Amino acid sequence: MLVLGIDPGTIHLGWGVVERRGPKLVHIGHGVIHARPSESLSDRLAVIAAELERVIAEHRPALGSVEQLFFHKDPQAAAKLGHARGVVLLSLARAGVPLREHAPARIKRTLTGNGRAEKSQVAQMVSAILGIREALPPDASDALAIAITELRLDPLTPQVVQKPRRTRSKTLPPHVTRLVRAP
Amino acid sequence: MLVLGIDPGTIHLGWGVVERRGPKLVHIGHGVIHARPSESLSDRLAVIAAELERVIAEHRPALGSVEQLFFHKDPQAAAKLGHARGVVLLSLARAGVPLREHAPARIKRTLTGNGRAEKSQVAQMVSAILGIREALPPDASDALAIAITELRLDPLTPQVVQKPRRTRSKTLPPHVTRLVRAP
Repeated sequence: MLVLGIDPGTIHLGWGVVERRGPKLVHIGHGVIHARPSESLSDRLAVIAAELERVIAEHRPALGSVEQLFFHKDPQAAAKLGHARGVVLLSLARAGVPLREHAPARIKRTLTGNGRAEKSQVAQMVSAILGIREALPPDASDALAIAITELRLDPLTPQVVQKPRRTRSKTLPPHVTRLVRAP
Repeated sequence: MLVLGIDPGTIHLGWGVVERRGPKLVHIGHGVIHARPSESLSDRLAVIAAELERVIAEHRPALGSVEQLFFHKDPQAAAKLGHARGVVLLSLARAGVPLREHAPARIKRTLTGNGRAEKSQVAQMVSAILGIREALPPDASDALAIAITELRLDPLTPQVVQKPRRTRSKTLPPHVTRLVRAP
């Protein structure tokens, strides 16, 4: 099961592909699509759509996953984000990839056990779970976090880790520790 | 010069095509793309994009014209509208159609002489200017109003009505009256 997580934006759009293989979550790829701030919003959306379509065609994910639309305080920012999100939803729909959405707090809770975790804590867990050593661009890390959330929460697929294992620390949720410790 | 005006929405998207021929603005076509509210936002955006691409391919406009993004009071509504607007901008960019944006008050002023005109007054002027007798769907009427604004304000093309004519009423801006009275 391959999931494409996407963190939409009109200048930087993060993406990350994660696969579940048995008990393990495997990092397949990630990246950030950059559009030039000097270009018009239309041209930026065209760049984002073209690059994202390339990513979808290359990885053929079973699911696409994005953050739920949340009640932004700034309507102007919400509208801008909406433009990028619209292009993301369209690209997935046209490729026949179903969309799933997760609330920001749920993503944080799934990764760290705390729905109000700092961005840096989430990023740390993404690297730990996927065994990534180099520093990840923040947009790509956020996208991978969404993909991990999807694979951990997916109710349609069986929970593959059956045997209880010793947990490493009480500050981590059990499933995360299991994943980190998986061979 | 053919202009496609678009009034974006995630359920109803209005479009209208207007051509300037000498001193006259000629109504070429209009319509409303309907997406089913019961469908997912992704599927609605796919329907809107496909239909809009069909309209663009059929009419091959020189310009696409939309309302400027204005400071919505409701962030959720702004984000929703952003999704549809993003798909509109993408469809135009991919077809190589340049985009122009106009503030709502400018559209109202251009059509009625009053930047705070009621929607119904704008609709009445759209019908009068284009000589449309049947009732227009509100979304299509709004789209035609944007196209008319574009053609009236376009600074790159010469003003085609040179001779002063008798104005019909002081409540209408001169160019509108001239258009209504043109043979």
